[in-house]
Amino acid sequence: MLPDRVIIDLEHRAVRPFTRKKEVRLSEMEDYFLDTDEVVRILSRGEDPLVYEYYEYSPSGSQGNLNLGLTTIYPGKVGREFYMTKGHYHEKDAAELYYCLRGHGVLLMQTTDGKVSFVHLEPGSVGYVPVGWGHRTINTGNEEFVFFFAYPSDAGHDYAIVKERGFAKIVVHENGRVEFVDNPRYKRA
Amino acid sequence: MLPDRVIIDLEHRAVRPFTRKKEVRLSEMEDYFLDTDEVVRILSRGEDPLVYEYYEYSPSGSQGNLNLGLTTIYPGKVGREFYMTKGHYHEKDAAELYYCLRGHGVLLMQTTDGKVSFVHLEPGSVGYVPVGWGHRTINTGNEEFVFFFAYPSDAGHDYAIVKERGFAKIVVHENGRVEFVDNPRYKRA
Repeated sequence: MLPDRVIIDLEHRAVRPFTRKKEVRLSEMEDYFLDTDEVVRILSRGEDPLVYEYYEYSPSGSQGNLNLGLTTIYPGKVGREFYMTKGHYHEKDAAELYYCLRGHGVLLMQTTDGKVSFVHLEPGSVGYVPVGWGHRTINTGNEEFVFFFAYPSDAGHDYAIVKERGFAKIVVHENGRVEFVDNPRYKRA
Repeated sequence: MLPDRVIIDLEHRAVRPFTRKKEVRLSEMEDYFLDTDEVVRILSRGEDPLVYEYYEYSPSGSQGNLNLGLTTIYPGKVGREFYMTKGHYHEKDAAELYYCLRGHGVLLMQTTDGKVSFVHLEPGSVGYVPVGWGHRTINTGNEEFVFFFAYPSDAGHDYAIVKERGFAKIVVHENGRVEFVDNPRYKRA
């Protein structure tokens, strides 16, 4: 492959060129938010809000390459739970970095053997997801939470484990604060 | 290893925490600029200007991890040749990304079998160095050229090949423009 130049268009929250763009609406996340009744209520009103979207540039899937892109999580909540990404584990030993460019949020991480960790992100901070840690990002602010990401191109994504088991903690707005509370639906491996 | 949070302090062009900080002054780059007489003249005046510096965060050297950091190339020239980094090849199959945050510059790339390429970088653009391409960055502007970088932690660096053979092109200021000219000292493999 040849050298390339990729534009991170923060104003339009887009990447050019990109190999993948995905918009994730609430209807695709029914199984992810704790308050499923509230999800049903929102959808039954004919609303299907955009929760997050990302642009990705993947030059090659082979080892040694890097995928990069830009994710925007919109501000909002389902009940008291902040808008977030689905989250995933990597299939291979592969780290990931999240470089916050706009807004405020949390990078929530966990291992299958029960460790949980998180970092707060604001513009200028990078969250580092070590090898082996499942990860999800959450918009805890009132504006768009936008970050640049990069990870090894051969990482692979396991979304199923999160869909089946959830994350150990959920991030909620309570008493005017951002709180981390146990997820009653979490199934430990 | 554990999750971590790294601050990219653009105001002070620093990274916290960091595992390595390096300042490269002209005296360390005598063999890199074409006009060696001019290098000697500058140094003989008792000057030893800072050409570039970087902060790096390396969580682990093992495969699947990512090193990241911030490089600042100062504005300046040696003769007509712009300030630049030494440049290197990776020892393993490993790409690298350069995300420009401030200033203007060029990412110059080449392969050992004679291919040459470059991309212009300005704030918001990412230069992608594919596997196998040697790379150097050059400040072609009048202010600091600052970029975020990331690459696989197990990449390894081969600086010797650049020191011995140089880059096929040098980037110079000529007729008020940025020009790429053949490097008469370049030794093809």
